[in-house]
Amino acid sequence: MRALRYYGANDIRLDDIPEPEPGPGMIKVAVEAAGICGSDIHEYKSGPISTPVQAPHPLTGEQTPIVLGHEFCGTVVAVGEGVERIAVGQQVAANAALWCGQCPPCLEGSTNVCQSIGFHGVSGGGGAFAAFDVIHERNAHVIPDSVLPSVGALLEPLATAIHAVKMAELHPGDHTVVFGAGPIGLMVLSVLSAMGLESIIAVEPGASRAAAATRCGATTVIDPFTEDVRTRIAEITGGGRVGASFDAAAAPDSLHVAIDITGVHGRVINIAAWERGVEFNPTSLLFREVSLHGSLAYTSKDFDDAVAHAATRAETLAGMITSTIALDDVITAGFDRLAYDKHDEIKVLVRP
Amino acid sequence: MRALRYYGANDIRLDDIPEPEPGPGMIKVAVEAAGICGSDIHEYKSGPISTPVQAPHPLTGEQTPIVLGHEFCGTVVAVGEGVERIAVGQQVAANAALWCGQCPPCLEGSTNVCQSIGFHGVSGGGGAFAAFDVIHERNAHVIPDSVLPSVGALLEPLATAIHAVKMAELHPGDHTVVFGAGPIGLMVLSVLSAMGLESIIAVEPGASRAAAATRCGATTVIDPFTEDVRTRIAEITGGGRVGASFDAAAAPDSLHVAIDITGVHGRVINIAAWERGVEFNPTSLLFREVSLHGSLAYTSKDFDDAVAHAATRAETLAGMITSTIALDDVITAGFDRLAYDKHDEIKVLVRP
Ligand SMILES: [Zn+2]
Ligand SMILES: [Zn+2]
Repeated sequence: MRALRYYGANDIRLDDIPEPEPGPGMIKVAVEAAGICGSDIHEYKSGPISTPVQAPHPLTGEQTPIVLGHEFCGTVVAVGEGVERIAVGQQVAANAALWCGQCPPCLEGSTNVCQSIGFHGVSGGGGAFAAFDVIHERNAHVIPDSVLPSVGALLEPLATAIHAVKMAELHPGDHTVVFGAGPIGLMVLSVLSAMGLESIIAVEPGASRAAAATRCGATTVIDPFTEDVRTRIAEITGGGRVGASFDAAAAPDSLHVAIDITGVHGRVINIAAWERGVEFNPTSLLFREVSLHGSLAYTSKDFDDAVAHAATRAETLAGMITSTIALDDVITAGFDRLAYDKHDEIKVLVRP
Repeated sequence: MRALRYYGANDIRLDDIPEPEPGPGMIKVAVEAAGICGSDIHEYKSGPISTPVQAPHPLTGEQTPIVLGHEFCGTVVAVGEGVERIAVGQQVAANAALWCGQCPPCLEGSTNVCQSIGFHGVSGGGGAFAAFDVIHERNAHVIPDSVLPSVGALLEPLATAIHAVKMAELHPGDHTVVFGAGPIGLMVLSVLSAMGLESIIAVEPGASRAAAATRCGATTVIDPFTEDVRTRIAEITGGGRVGASFDAAAAPDSLHVAIDITGVHGRVINIAAWERGVEFNPTSLLFREVSLHGSLAYTSKDFDDAVAHAATRAETLAGMITSTIALDDVITAGFDRLAYDKHDEIKVLVRP
């Protein structure tokens, strides 16, 4: 079968590789839809960042070239020995996180910060930009047939957003601010909206992303290129507390603005990948005892919560999909376009 | 009476000012001992930072020149109208925090992040580098006569350390790391030790401060100039979790090392004053979901806890006092020496 494999920066290839077959405890999935993630594009433009290049990844035993694709949904076509919870014919979304199950964080249930953390479709072990993929049974989450495969492919980034929102420990009545309305920012907005929060402020300069932010639940969208973000947020909140701000932008000034607008004992949650550092004065956290957090991926519980969220917000989520392309076009219409074209895309799906 | 007043950077003067008298709700204290704080020295060398220069402070109505001195203990010599809880003759330590009592954080009990936060001896309203001082009744904490005035003068920074340690939300069995064994770092060590934690690591290059760290409860002291801190901590913890690290150093690399050595879901607590920012990549918080916090001052409850701590650890605390000087010498033997001399001082007390 054809599969998109990563070799290094600006070097991805549609290779012919053997169709994978499920070993014990594994399931084989016919991929219905697979999303291209911002991290895939980072890896393509500026990598290798997370792909194992020098040595095999401890959890997959593989190194580059590795198959890409970690946000996906498909139909189970075969199961390996000992698989009991999943049956052929079921629709499943893939929890891409790989964890060891034995390190101290894993034993405490924090599998997302496993000391050997890896990601299916990034760390080797297979990937979804191919007709078929094989994953561990424990990584398969059954989704109702009423959820379209295109929406099922959004569950992985949605689980990331859910994990970040839980980390914020919001209180009823809190204002919230989301910097950046790319896919993860939009999913955070959708989750905040589903929580019933009444003041959800998005900061986004792009017109089409600003419109998407409103569709996902933002109650106000601020354009940081034409408005002063600090002043506008002070006007909107009128002295109320911003309980958390989410940085999905990694814009040069987003960290500083996020700290400044977050209220007493509020949290700034970073969910963006920063290519380089910024100037930062730790004293800036002092006066309202704001804290700064990084949210990494999700646990199986977060993924289950994503399945539940998608069941009620399918239309909102589907609105983030701006293009659906064929596997044959994944390099040109997918990676090259997202990495190097000026574009209005939010989420591009590949349908192998 | 003579009082040390702050005019601006490198401009402090022993002025003759009228002896203050207590208005309603206020008490007059004969100062027995007053500590020179690191923040006093910052203000002297690099200020004005916190002193009100351009306009009167909202809570004191005063601006420079203002009397300095916010860490102190003394004997009540007069009380104003309506004072009921405090009587003449009692020994009191002063909670230097000034709060409005009306803003949202104050109403929730977080008076240390009052929107108008100020500090007696910094923001005007009096100060302790003088024979007499006047404070609000609510700022006076009665201390047992068995506690020496010299130890009583350490309660203010001790309350700061207690607040920082509470913020760390440590778990039994956690390893802890304290960067910098100046007065605040030493007090954090003393508080951690009193909690019964078994692994308390101090990072301090100075020999006399390293010795003080051991006296205050550090179980290991690492010299960052001759040892690799990350490697040594990994050896000491042997895979165990550093639950929190406290940055009381504000050394160029302390933030990065603190983040790197703190364990899964651990906290980095900044209690240092940073004169400038450092390069920081928010992604560095991601892989163990470490969070970064700033701890500011203390509440009245923290101050009460400091009084209780001092009752059992008086000797440890007294060991931090390296010099006791007269008010007449406060500029030369106090401020100039701490700011511009190479010295081995930890805490210098003034006895007016
Ligand atoms: Zn693990
Ligand atoms: Zn207040």
